Amino acid sequence: MSNVIATYQVFGDQESFEKKAEGIALGLTVGSWTDLPALDQEQLKKYRGTVVSIQDLGFHELASFAKNKKTASAHVKISYPSRNFSADIPAILTTVFGKLSLDGMVRLIDLEFEGEIARAFPGPRYGIEGIRDLVGVYHRPLVMSIFKGVLGRDMEFLSKQLKDQALGGMDLVKDDEILFDNVLTPFIERIKKGKHVLNQVYEETGHRTLYAVNLSGRTSLLKDQAKRAKEAGADAFLFNVFTYGLDVLQELREDSEIALPIMTHPSFSGAISGSSLFGVHYQLILGKLVRLTGADLSLFPSPYGSVALPKEDALLIAEALTGESPFKTSFPVPSAGIHPGLVPQLIHDFGKDQVINAGGGVHGHPDGAVAGGKSFRQAVDSIIEGKSLEDVLDEKKELKTAIATWGSVEVKK
Amino acid sequence: MSNVIATYQVFGDQESFEKKAEGIALGLTVGSWTDLPALDQEQLKKYRGTVVSIQDLGFHELASFAKNKKTASAHVKISYPSRNFSADIPAILTTVFGKLSLDGMVRLIDLEFEGEIARAFPGPRYGIEGIRDLVGVYHRPLVMSIFKGVLGRDMEFLSKQLKDQALGGMDLVKDDEILFDNVLTPFIERIKKGKHVLNQVYEETGHRTLYAVNLSGRTSLLKDQAKRAKEAGADAFLFNVFTYGLDVLQELREDSEIALPIMTHPSFSGAISGSSLFGVHYQLILGKLVRLTGADLSLFPSPYGSVALPKEDALLIAEALTGESPFKTSFPVPSAGIHPGLVPQLIHDFGKDQVINAGGGVHGHPDGAVAGGKSFRQAVDSIIEGKSLEDVLDEKKELKTAIATWGSVEVKK
Repeated sequence: MSNVIATYQVFGDQESFEKKAEGIALGLTVGSWTDLPALDQEQLKKYRGTVVSIQDLGFHELASFAKNKKTASAHVKISYPSRNFSADIPAILTTVFGKLSLDGMVRLIDLEFEGEIARAFPGPRYGIEGIRDLVGVYHRPLVMSIFKGVLGRDMEFLSKQLKDQALGGMDLVKDDEILFDNVLTPFIERIKKGKHVLNQVYEETGHRTLYAVNLSGRTSLLKDQAKRAKEAGADAFLFNVFTYGLDVLQELREDSEIALPIMTHPSFSGAISGSSLFGVHYQLILGKLVRLTGADLSLFPSPYGSVALPKEDALLIAEALTGESPFKTSFPVPSAGIHPGLVPQLIHDFGKDQVINAGGGVHGHPDGAVAGGKSFRQAVDSIIEGKSLEDVLDEKKELKTAIATWGSVEVKK
Repeated sequence: MSNVIATYQVFGDQESFEKKAEGIALGLTVGSWTDLPALDQEQLKKYRGTVVSIQDLGFHELASFAKNKKTASAHVKISYPSRNFSADIPAILTTVFGKLSLDGMVRLIDLEFEGEIARAFPGPRYGIEGIRDLVGVYHRPLVMSIFKGVLGRDMEFLSKQLKDQALGGMDLVKDDEILFDNVLTPFIERIKKGKHVLNQVYEETGHRTLYAVNLSGRTSLLKDQAKRAKEAGADAFLFNVFTYGLDVLQELREDSEIALPIMTHPSFSGAISGSSLFGVHYQLILGKLVRLTGADLSLFPSPYGSVALPKEDALLIAEALTGESPFKTSFPVPSAGIHPGLVPQLIHDFGKDQVINAGGGVHGHPDGAVAGGKSFRQAVDSIIEGKSLEDVLDEKKELKTAIATWGSVEVKK
């Protein structure tokens, strides 16, 4: 037996949930049922969707307001036989949330892959352990930073930024997701020049930084582009998966001639997951589905900044990336609004196996990006050594300046 | 000058809109501005996003409730220089609605392509005129029907359904979007057998029906699959574009070895467009963007059925598919809840250049699908000839039965 079990949040009268669930289970599989002759029922039984459970969640305030009448919600689980679809994400999403996504207020909360169907997916090639092997860091969260203000800038500008970030002790540096192949800083040149800069820093300091370049362009050219990138010395890829498609991510992951770490960016995912009445839960798309299809690292909005997710959602994403599963784990990368004063909270919330990722919190340091990077590493080291940030401020001047700039945050349990 | 102009609906205090617009224009392009040295400002000017207009829409009830404070909304237009991105949909969507989609309540309403950037897109290969040439019908809306209850069924079952629909006078018959390549009715066999059946009907009746087969499977194999389909005699493709990606549609359109009509299905689009506070307006994704990237026909929820769009949105989609543009027009296919009694309203709302598309309204006819098909053709012909349905009921027994079954609908102007 192989099934995909979908969990939906549905909205309506509490008395309607059972009928609604049955309607989904049939409507997305064999269609009508009770009208069918017994012989047809016998033949179609193994294609029929079945209602696994209905959990009444009670009154829903926003839905009631939107519908202008008292409305409850429920979690409904439906099991779909995997013989109904080919073993790929487009077919699965079309089946479980194709037509249904258009049926008024309804959210897809989770997908479980039971039996053989799970083996159709690769999971991450590297995963947390593999990425740690690449950077040689095992005892602490990794630290990453992002290029800033790079549109219209040349290679010299980018090289300087990259060098500063590496000298600051970043384990990873990623492209801005809106930097595509362009005349001023062409894709392959960024990789070659970046490699050169990072090798220089390694020779100077013994510290190794990986650079994740933004893999972009037309869909059918991505694999070739990735292979050319690898030949040019690329370390890893940033990928705007939600403007392409999860199956495209999976195909990049599966190609053994590429075989570099892939970091997925959440760009456009807010269009799919922002609403609490429609679309797909963040946990599923930024967590389980990118892990399933091969992301080694998944960026998602942190619960702290101005572009913030509810903490509950951010923790669910991290859990989906690192929890029990047949696949390797993916690195959670809670992003946006991160400064060194938040490191204790970040480690409290997301543990050791995360990538602490900052843009403004590195580049905005009063003494520059090198100091910005150092301040993060100092904050991380102090927490991992069991000290508070306050304990080390006198010895760590970069961190002291950072805390003076952005403040420290008392850890909320 | 080449730009992409995005229209957003933003939410907040009426006093905040100007600042918010400026924040988007800068944040999604060059980042900070006022802090930059004059020399940098000079260098970056041509990469900078600019605010084109802000239209205050006043108090927004649902947003006010969701935010728990008085909230207004506005349409904000921002112009992005196309030199900032590569000329492909993933890069454009990442730029204009990547990070921004995650920034709380905000909707992407429209995209305009100004200058050279528009030439990067193909538009439909056939368009309305080309499809009319293929079916040889010029004076009326086309009529299409959908296979029903096909999961778990064999070729014989499908052949019978196809034959009935063709005998009923359908111009097009489409696969169910949840029918993928499968053991019982394999993709290539469906095409070959379908061709055979439709040729038989043509020989018997002189009526030509096109069959749109569901193009599915892994992304990188789609083109080969489409070419094999063409060799096997396929007429057209149904494509679940939103579980793949718009760029994948565009690549299928651009491949001159494929060169068959493409019909896009709205499956999963509700996840992106269902909310009125988040995501992308239906008009943009089911209208302008599928036209731009090459859909010859675009299915979208009709404003009549249980799975219904507001009529205003459905009309905007049709307008985007058929209005002024550098590209060929795409056939609007308002779908779901369509029965013969709705034909006068459909023609009133969407005109002659549409495809009237029914599932239950054909197969559910008391005298079977042949009669169901005929009843639609009779309804269409009577309206095109300037008669009302009532005028012809006595001569048209299939239509009479259909109206007795589903009723007729008084046209709402």
